[in-house]
Amino acid sequence: MDIDLPPCKPGQQRVVIIGAGFGGLRLARKLSPRDFQVVLLDRFNYHQFQPLLYQVATSGVEPSSISFPLRKIFHHRPNVIIRIAEVQSFDTVNKRVVTSIGDIPFDILVLAHGATTHYFNMEDIERYAFPMKSVPEALLLRNTLLQRFEEALTTQVPGQKQADLNLVVVGGGPTGVELAGTLAEMKKKILPRDFPELDFSAMQIYLVEASPRLLNGMSEASGQRVREYLSRLGVTVMTDTAVTGYDGETVRLKSGQQIPSRTLIWAAGVRGNQLPGLPDEASAPASRIRVDEYNRVAGLSEVYAIGDIAFIPSDDYPKGHPQVAPAAIQQADTLAANLAAAGKGRPMHPFRYRDKGSMATVGRNLAVAEMGKLRMGGLVAWMAWMAVHLFSLVGVKNKIVIFLNWIWQYFTYDSSLRLIIKPAGEPGNAST
Amino acid sequence: MDIDLPPCKPGQQRVVIIGAGFGGLRLARKLSPRDFQVVLLDRFNYHQFQPLLYQVATSGVEPSSISFPLRKIFHHRPNVIIRIAEVQSFDTVNKRVVTSIGDIPFDILVLAHGATTHYFNMEDIERYAFPMKSVPEALLLRNTLLQRFEEALTTQVPGQKQADLNLVVVGGGPTGVELAGTLAEMKKKILPRDFPELDFSAMQIYLVEASPRLLNGMSEASGQRVREYLSRLGVTVMTDTAVTGYDGETVRLKSGQQIPSRTLIWAAGVRGNQLPGLPDEASAPASRIRVDEYNRVAGLSEVYAIGDIAFIPSDDYPKGHPQVAPAAIQQADTLAANLAAAGKGRPMHPFRYRDKGSMATVGRNLAVAEMGKLRMGGLVAWMAWMAVHLFSLVGVKNKIVIFLNWIWQYFTYDSSLRLIIKPAGEPGNAST
Repeated sequence: MDIDLPPCKPGQQRVVIIGAGFGGLRLARKLSPRDFQVVLLDRFNYHQFQPLLYQVATSGVEPSSISFPLRKIFHHRPNVIIRIAEVQSFDTVNKRVVTSIGDIPFDILVLAHGATTHYFNMEDIERYAFPMKSVPEALLLRNTLLQRFEEALTTQVPGQKQADLNLVVVGGGPTGVELAGTLAEMKKKILPRDFPELDFSAMQIYLVEASPRLLNGMSEASGQRVREYLSRLGVTVMTDTAVTGYDGETVRLKSGQQIPSRTLIWAAGVRGNQLPGLPDEASAPASRIRVDEYNRVAGLSEVYAIGDIAFIPSDDYPKGHPQVAPAAIQQADTLAANLAAAGKGRPMHPFRYRDKGSMATVGRNLAVAEMGKLRMGGLVAWMAWMAVHLFSLVGVKNKIVIFLNWIWQYFTYDSSLRLIIKPAGEPGNAST
Repeated sequence: MDIDLPPCKPGQQRVVIIGAGFGGLRLARKLSPRDFQVVLLDRFNYHQFQPLLYQVATSGVEPSSISFPLRKIFHHRPNVIIRIAEVQSFDTVNKRVVTSIGDIPFDILVLAHGATTHYFNMEDIERYAFPMKSVPEALLLRNTLLQRFEEALTTQVPGQKQADLNLVVVGGGPTGVELAGTLAEMKKKILPRDFPELDFSAMQIYLVEASPRLLNGMSEASGQRVREYLSRLGVTVMTDTAVTGYDGETVRLKSGQQIPSRTLIWAAGVRGNQLPGLPDEASAPASRIRVDEYNRVAGLSEVYAIGDIAFIPSDDYPKGHPQVAPAAIQQADTLAANLAAAGKGRPMHPFRYRDKGSMATVGRNLAVAEMGKLRMGGLVAWMAWMAVHLFSLVGVKNKIVIFLNWIWQYFTYDSSLRLIIKPAGEPGNAST
């Protein structure tokens, strides 16, 4: 059954956007209220600023500082209608999105539902490892990290204390690097004060990467520099090392080595969120959706895909464009212009990616950044990293809050967010 | 089996404190490191500032602003050992506390495990109503309140939209009054902007109280004044009105009246948290623990109770002292002095309650406050309320954060915390 929606105004087409990440949010903001009614769907009622998820997981910033309520973002945009729903499938013949709250008819559909953690078919890892692609997952990781040290204090199971202390981060991309660096700083500055009864010299932090180097999206030199930073902070960096199994207690490596750890964080890859109802010719590697240079989904009309989920074959990027915020935002901008042009019968323009460079931070005063031929490291790169991330955050208040938080932590080496908070069980359930 | 704990130093006695609320926290801070090893037990790893829970529930402040990690509080107190555990029972013969992490031997036991929601044996209300006595419960309420409006947008069940919009708060004490007032402000200033598709003139907020008046702990005049404030804000105040049943959809009143509401908030009473292992003579009304004026539990030696859980019979307070933070803190101070005195063979001093007055806020510029014969209302009381609560918060950073938050909201009529955030499911569970 179709859900209740306000009817389109005369001259409006309805654009249904799946996902309020960087791409979907940008597009919803850019589409002209005169020409388009926008229905923005997401499973959460907030936009997540994914680049700082690792700071939520490590008790550095509050979830609310990197989560912005969608309804507030669109207070002054009456043409944008928001629905919180799980999308179940697409019916492209009858032009409907099938969701947990009912069917939603569209004139134009934009798929911006992004990527999720890729476990490469390793079921035990999917079952026991901690992913970190959403605020709820980052919060669960925060709760668990803190809980492990509590457990290390009280366990009487032989060998469990070491497994409680050890942390294994898998994946040498920006997320893995940032997480490992921050955990190393916690180990040094914060945990010994919180848990004076534990011997943190016994704690090991591993960063495990299957390829020969860290930060494959950046230069060899930056990868090497980050490796040195991490080693200096006490992280055991293992490249050329594949994880082959995990049972929740012991990480098994391809070499046969075993690492006792009850906390394996999986940041080793992403794949597109899969939803049924698209033609076979639209399928692309890593569950992405094949689109042309106008972001049109292969084999369909009036259906587009942007951001991490979109795969645009091109000579410069044979594996698709990088799955990063700037690519999603640029695709949203191009698509907004193209939809406006198409509505007026004007030609569309093909998407051209402008690489704004990339960066990763390891810890206090330590980062690497590259923009074209310019390469930076250390303090300069770290300040650039902070500036770029602050300016990218939605909302003045979030910018201020995060900035003050960072200053506070810089001087005190300490935030006050080491809380194990889980909402209580729903009333009406058996356990209450 | 006894848990691992560092041994007491020569001359130290081990004081085990159950609960890190206002009383337990204060006592742990006050006991001399030379004479006492303190083991502080709580089921959460943080102290909760309960007076501001209602602001968490209404998206006004972050949970972290009113929750302070216990380990951080005691960074500079090496004699205080913290364990996160559920207490299961007391073995006063063998002087052990039985907990979820093992047994904990004590020389002196202090029960400071406070009060919980009292449903007066109404099982349906316990099952379907929302309590608000802890941060997790306040977060669940926050998530639910926001979820209800999302549901009101999409429901196609006849009558459910009205039940989604209506809110019923039961209990005319400070918590109920503060919650009803804040919800009324949200209805007026925030919700219509977040949900322009909903008609909020159809939304009703009820404050239901079984006794003839609001704020029974304060003067008749203050109760009346608060009633006027609430009516002005659009709250339907119903005194002399008892709730007799609730099925999650419809609230039934003793008069026979029925109110459709999917959100019933129960702030109508508290009772002591019950734990087995105490003698019968220690039981007191509303599940409190009977102690003498030295806070000694009736029928036991070296076992004390303070705060909301303690019932000290006295002529001035035949129903026990008010279950408020100042009473708990004063009892902790008296007990700290008495334990020190007893250790030195000096006499103990009986507890004498010094009433510091009481206050309640209804909303922006609206509050009542009483100190002895001094009675205040309106803006003056509201500012006094803010000052008292700010100064009572643990930690400089929390004070600053809450203060800035309040200023921001005062000028913008808006916070950015309307987030429905639940941590993801634990790995290893079936659903992941």
